[in-house]
Amino acid sequence: MTSDNPDTHSLGALDETAKRLLFSDARTANTFADTPVSDAELAAIWELARWAPTSANTQPLRVLYVRGGAGRDRLVTHMNDGNRAKTASAPAVAVLAMDDRFHEHIPTVLPYKPELRDVFAGNDALRTGTALFNATLQAGYFILAVRAQGLAAGPMGGFDAAGIDADFFPDGRFHSILVVNIGHPGKDPWYDRLPRLGHDEVVRWA
Amino acid sequence: MTSDNPDTHSLGALDETAKRLLFSDARTANTFADTPVSDAELAAIWELARWAPTSANTQPLRVLYVRGGAGRDRLVTHMNDGNRAKTASAPAVAVLAMDDRFHEHIPTVLPYKPELRDVFAGNDALRTGTALFNATLQAGYFILAVRAQGLAAGPMGGFDAAGIDADFFPDGRFHSILVVNIGHPGKDPWYDRLPRLGHDEVVRWA
Repeated sequence: MTSDNPDTHSLGALDETAKRLLFSDARTANTFADTPVSDAELAAIWELARWAPTSANTQPLRVLYVRGGAGRDRLVTHMNDGNRAKTASAPAVAVLAMDDRFHEHIPTVLPYKPELRDVFAGNDALRTGTALFNATLQAGYFILAVRAQGLAAGPMGGFDAAGIDADFFPDGRFHSILVVNIGHPGKDPWYDRLPRLGHDEVVRWA
Repeated sequence: MTSDNPDTHSLGALDETAKRLLFSDARTANTFADTPVSDAELAAIWELARWAPTSANTQPLRVLYVRGGAGRDRLVTHMNDGNRAKTASAPAVAVLAMDDRFHEHIPTVLPYKPELRDVFAGNDALRTGTALFNATLQAGYFILAVRAQGLAAGPMGGFDAAGIDADFFPDGRFHSILVVNIGHPGKDPWYDRLPRLGHDEVVRWA
């Protein structure tokens, strides 16, 4: 990772195949093959995503992997109608949630500023806003980490969050923000790609 | 991207070098070399990030690239004290903002459901929540797209958002959510890595 000049560091870039895999050719899968996804593969997704940055190293995202059986059946009942068949057919599903008490870990994760724990403890709006913002950033990292492991991700916002939280996180500490189907694409897995905004509609220069 | 069996599709995975580049070895740079970053490189970052998914294809993130000169000087004044030297030394800086009127694009980006534009127009809380959530997801994609291009990212939450918005987005439509320094790492660019939460603290299984 370092060049011969101690004052500069040269980083590599992804090759075109890798860029396509993660970004430009990747698609949201809507059907899944029977091919199983192992617990080791699911753990490997988090092993990648955990390193990407968060504000003050807060890391508020929590991941519940639902594989099959009764847990899956319960999860499906909390999904919107249009998402139930997809979630029922995915070999694994991740419920991504924010931990509203992430600040209890501050003395461990931010050892040079442990007093930030009490700042968050005393300011509910700051704490919740920080949790939601950073957990959502981490959800973005998570989706790309699924793809990095060679799996298809199917993120969905259409679900009864209060229902999932009451069912799977009954202590009230975690709040679900996104549900992601994970697996290998099945038959006719992709819809036609929807248009992206043009560069001139998104990017400005100063 | 497809296997011989029409009912399943095999995706590739990133190799270990690529995984390290994007996730496990990547670090937030705090100093930058003089090596310039070209407009083509900055455009290429967005060319990757634009493809990653958002709810209902809403794509509410907007990117302002600030390169140098008077714009940079103004931006630095809006950064928190601890971030000013970093932003002043980065060859390029991205101000990431959410577009609170993203729904005006719905008939283009979601052509099968153009009526969603009016749903968002009539519900400020839904519109703003959708904009913030999806723009933040896209900010996560953006940070990894910077790394995919072989550049170091330095995301910062410490800035006067109202000041940036009044200065750079005076029509009131865009709201800054994150500022990201972009460049090649300089001298002593990385602090010691802060601890990540253990898998057992983040991941649950059902």
